[in-house]
Amino acid sequence: MRIKFQQKLDELKERLLVMAGLVEQAIQRATEAYSSRDMDLCELVALSEPAINRMEHEIDQLALDLLAMEQPMAVDLRFILAVIRINADLERVGDQAVNISNRVKDLGASTDDLPVDIPKLAQLSTAMIRKALQSFIEADTEMAEAVLLLDDQVDELNRDAFRTLGAMIQEHPDRTPDALNALVISRNLERVGDHATNIAEDVIFWVSGADVRHHFAANAAA
Amino acid sequence: MRIKFQQKLDELKERLLVMAGLVEQAIQRATEAYSSRDMDLCELVALSEPAINRMEHEIDQLALDLLAMEQPMAVDLRFILAVIRINADLERVGDQAVNISNRVKDLGASTDDLPVDIPKLAQLSTAMIRKALQSFIEADTEMAEAVLLLDDQVDELNRDAFRTLGAMIQEHPDRTPDALNALVISRNLERVGDHATNIAEDVIFWVSGADVRHHFAANAAA
Repeated sequence: MRIKFQQKLDELKERLLVMAGLVEQAIQRATEAYSSRDMDLCELVALSEPAINRMEHEIDQLALDLLAMEQPMAVDLRFILAVIRINADLERVGDQAVNISNRVKDLGASTDDLPVDIPKLAQLSTAMIRKALQSFIEADTEMAEAVLLLDDQVDELNRDAFRTLGAMIQEHPDRTPDALNALVISRNLERVGDHATNIAEDVIFWVSGADVRHHFAANAAA
Repeated sequence: MRIKFQQKLDELKERLLVMAGLVEQAIQRATEAYSSRDMDLCELVALSEPAINRMEHEIDQLALDLLAMEQPMAVDLRFILAVIRINADLERVGDQAVNISNRVKDLGASTDDLPVDIPKLAQLSTAMIRKALQSFIEADTEMAEAVLLLDDQVDELNRDAFRTLGAMIQEHPDRTPDALNALVISRNLERVGDHATNIAEDVIFWVSGADVRHHFAANAAA
């Protein structure tokens, strides 16, 4: 009975990692589509959405069945709740990939340089997702805490994008549509970083039992 | 024992409604601050954030305790999971209120007309949140489904804002900063509508046991 429960937990973890793989690939394709203006890649990202949604549903169902039938306690309960939350965040990262690829379609073949380092922002936010998932695989709270520190860099890059693209629009109003598209892509990538932060916080919650959202412990102690 | 469990469920529901009240007030204050350019209101919104975060934490803790200690089944389990999800969505609506008030601070006293109907968008997205919560209070899936239909209107208004503000920037590049701030506010309100949609879907999940996200049932039948 207990062995079977452990197998189901392992299955849940495996499926979540497959989900994470799909989502990571979608973000990579969307940002590569931005760099190369490859419309076929945009189509691939759009096609991945139903698969990601279906996977999210299956994982949720499995987690709910485990909660209802096995009535897990303590660390197992926290693990399943963490999976439910991480699953939702991954699905939203998939949505961001679709949003980005829609903006790339709008940009079209235009390869004029925009004053924003989208590839750098994409690399940083993808690295955050990957590190957050690694901390999940290894149940490593220190690694999860390292993810939280990276978020400030992503936010700063996004603010830079806002400034430089705003300045560009004022100098070259005819390039407003391109600049707005780049601005939205930058914002989408910043949100990917936010989701990575959420995932890292869920890992800490699962492993240590502490809720680190909003650094609540520090507030309560003050 | 059973009566005590029911009391705890009622307490969970009550607290979630208090949380919802705080969040709704924050969004209303933020959009009123936009209309009146009232910087004091912006401050009030910023001040509400710690209270909302604390409330989110308390509700989560109560829900987790109920899951761990009472090992609820079926509809009660779905109710508690719905509360956990709705709680997270409400906290994010609170974040949007803070984002909006930060943008209003950036806009400052400037009351030049911007070609975007922020109050209308705010009214519609707030109405979605209120209706979603009403469907939660009354366990009314029909009302929850009505919320899902409103989301298209909010999306359309946000797309309009993108078009008209983009056009304004091209004609009046000097007004780029104001236009970008209005654009972000419009996007924040569109996200409030998304959260209302999530809440309505959680109500349907709780009451009927069906997962309506991504209209999965329809997909699976096709």
